[in-house]
Amino acid sequence: MQTQTFSHTMLQSFTEQLFIRMGCPATEARVAAEVLIAADLRGIDSHGVARLSGYVRLWEAKRINAKPLLRVIHETPSTAVVDGDAGLGLVVAPYAMKIAIEKAKNVGSGWVSVQNSNHYGIAAAHAMLALEHDMIGFSMTNASPLVAPTFSNTRMLGTNPICMAAPAGEQPPFVMDLATTTAANGKLEILQRKHLNAPEGWVQDAAGNPTTDVHILKKGGALLPLGSDRDHGSHKGYALGAMVDILSALLSGANYAPWVPPFPAYVPMPAQQPGKGIGHFFGAMRVDAFRPAAAFKKDMDDWMLGFRNAQPLPGHQKVLVPGDPEREMEAERRSQGIPLLSTVVDDLKQVGNAMGVEWEAA
Amino acid sequence: MQTQTFSHTMLQSFTEQLFIRMGCPATEARVAAEVLIAADLRGIDSHGVARLSGYVRLWEAKRINAKPLLRVIHETPSTAVVDGDAGLGLVVAPYAMKIAIEKAKNVGSGWVSVQNSNHYGIAAAHAMLALEHDMIGFSMTNASPLVAPTFSNTRMLGTNPICMAAPAGEQPPFVMDLATTTAANGKLEILQRKHLNAPEGWVQDAAGNPTTDVHILKKGGALLPLGSDRDHGSHKGYALGAMVDILSALLSGANYAPWVPPFPAYVPMPAQQPGKGIGHFFGAMRVDAFRPAAAFKKDMDDWMLGFRNAQPLPGHQKVLVPGDPEREMEAERRSQGIPLLSTVVDDLKQVGNAMGVEWEAA
Repeated sequence: MQTQTFSHTMLQSFTEQLFIRMGCPATEARVAAEVLIAADLRGIDSHGVARLSGYVRLWEAKRINAKPLLRVIHETPSTAVVDGDAGLGLVVAPYAMKIAIEKAKNVGSGWVSVQNSNHYGIAAAHAMLALEHDMIGFSMTNASPLVAPTFSNTRMLGTNPICMAAPAGEQPPFVMDLATTTAANGKLEILQRKHLNAPEGWVQDAAGNPTTDVHILKKGGALLPLGSDRDHGSHKGYALGAMVDILSALLSGANYAPWVPPFPAYVPMPAQQPGKGIGHFFGAMRVDAFRPAAAFKKDMDDWMLGFRNAQPLPGHQKVLVPGDPEREMEAERRSQGIPLLSTVVDDLKQVGNAMGVEWEAA
Repeated sequence: MQTQTFSHTMLQSFTEQLFIRMGCPATEARVAAEVLIAADLRGIDSHGVARLSGYVRLWEAKRINAKPLLRVIHETPSTAVVDGDAGLGLVVAPYAMKIAIEKAKNVGSGWVSVQNSNHYGIAAAHAMLALEHDMIGFSMTNASPLVAPTFSNTRMLGTNPICMAAPAGEQPPFVMDLATTTAANGKLEILQRKHLNAPEGWVQDAAGNPTTDVHILKKGGALLPLGSDRDHGSHKGYALGAMVDILSALLSGANYAPWVPPFPAYVPMPAQQPGKGIGHFFGAMRVDAFRPAAAFKKDMDDWMLGFRNAQPLPGHQKVLVPGDPEREMEAERRSQGIPLLSTVVDDLKQVGNAMGVEWEAA
């Protein structure tokens, strides 16, 4: 597949301009673009600028409000519910995460559930906001129903990711960010472009039979929960996805389970709407609400070195710590640029054209 | 395998007496026995009275303190660290969970990390304490290192479970309680007794090669993280187990990663002791710190009915919700008794004899 490489500053500027043309205030356009480009920098290509035209189409369909009035609709000293007013999740999520951080400053921890939002990009972009405050950050979201629970062929849950970011001392931070499915949808898309089959255990067909067809989601198939089948713990992946749904949507009053609004604007909205928009959940805990931050970070360094020095299997150079691959990718792409597929570049040029934003491959 | 059946009240009384003979105060002996019997009632046989003699041997080895001074060594309005003073985890855990609940009453949520504890039984027994307060409960613990991270053959983590319990209205509560491995050690023990092999993807041998040998842990092998291999998301199971270790031990000052003290008293303690005892992590969030409890519980009912009414695959009567199998088992065993293997009964009689507690099969 043909790719072209662009600097993250050029992509940031293009994305920012596009959000401004949608009507976003300048500050929010910048934040939203930063979250989107963070995905491209970290190598989560499915959640970066490749999705930009999808957000524009949701705005055209009046499902995204470019000028949301973000507000706290309920709170206690350590908790809050935020109404995202149908705004870009890329803007709503940092707003909510910052409230969690403020609450953690005041009472040790802060937990914010969000209703009436939209797709928020990569979970890690929000949880990592906690790191500079010496806090542990959490970020979760529900998403379009594509996942069948164990023993079913009904798509009931999204890929509902769980992210935790924790600071270390001399070592880089611990950052885990995982879909609660065996493989995320983005992994299927990569195989589609390469004309390859999926490994067994990633998806099932509309009848619930195993398949390796990477196009099966368009034919009524489903992603499988982490664990793939009952013998290998798919009931655990299902439970983790359910936990994310409960914290993100049942606690906030957002739509849940199969009633989560789909990301593609051409997919009709579910007839039943038990809540508002999609839901997120954020948390922040001050490390020194438990132990002196220096002691914790020293232990985190030792903990990480323990894993890095564990015996690697033949064919592997080292044992990785969650966050390593994305951090290494970011360092590379910051200096050498972000490769985009030609189809993605064409799509961006087209949407830029329609919105009056020039594609300047600087 | 031969089993005999005993009432939970008889097993509760026997266990309570045994803990009293160890020197536990009567109230703590009762609580500890309740936690242990909860495992037998819920069908988690590996964590019930089958483990009782193991706790006694740890006490004999002076690794369990029967009269611990439990105390909070650091706190903020929404967080605390508890020193378990080498007490029974079965006693330390409910103490810490109740602190989380009190903090949630005051400021919306409470989060307690615990150092210097021992094995705490089933995670669900503690998280479920939140339910009667209309709170969501969380419970995690680290454990003896038996799990190799992805791409390694070094045992670095325990089966580190994650539990969340959330109340519903007319439906029973949501209770997920899962080891972050493809299969827990108890599942291997069941296959050992039946002289069966393990499915592929549960364990690897000392060199890191796939194996189905259910005795492989005694030969230097390791349990695999949830996901089994890299293609099926084992790096996610590894990250989830790591998250539990960080919250339970790095935040509290307990031992972590391969330095967690082993449960069997005959296994020597690790030479390095970066912290104190084993670590747990508990959380409680008041539902009405987010939304009116009645609205949340109504949505939980609808959420659960959605899953229960999802299309089951051929050969399955219904789609389950996390907590269903354990609740059904508890109803059955409360009325019909708890079946114990003859080997377990013999072991209990023997330890009862040694401690001067009569086994009265009432």
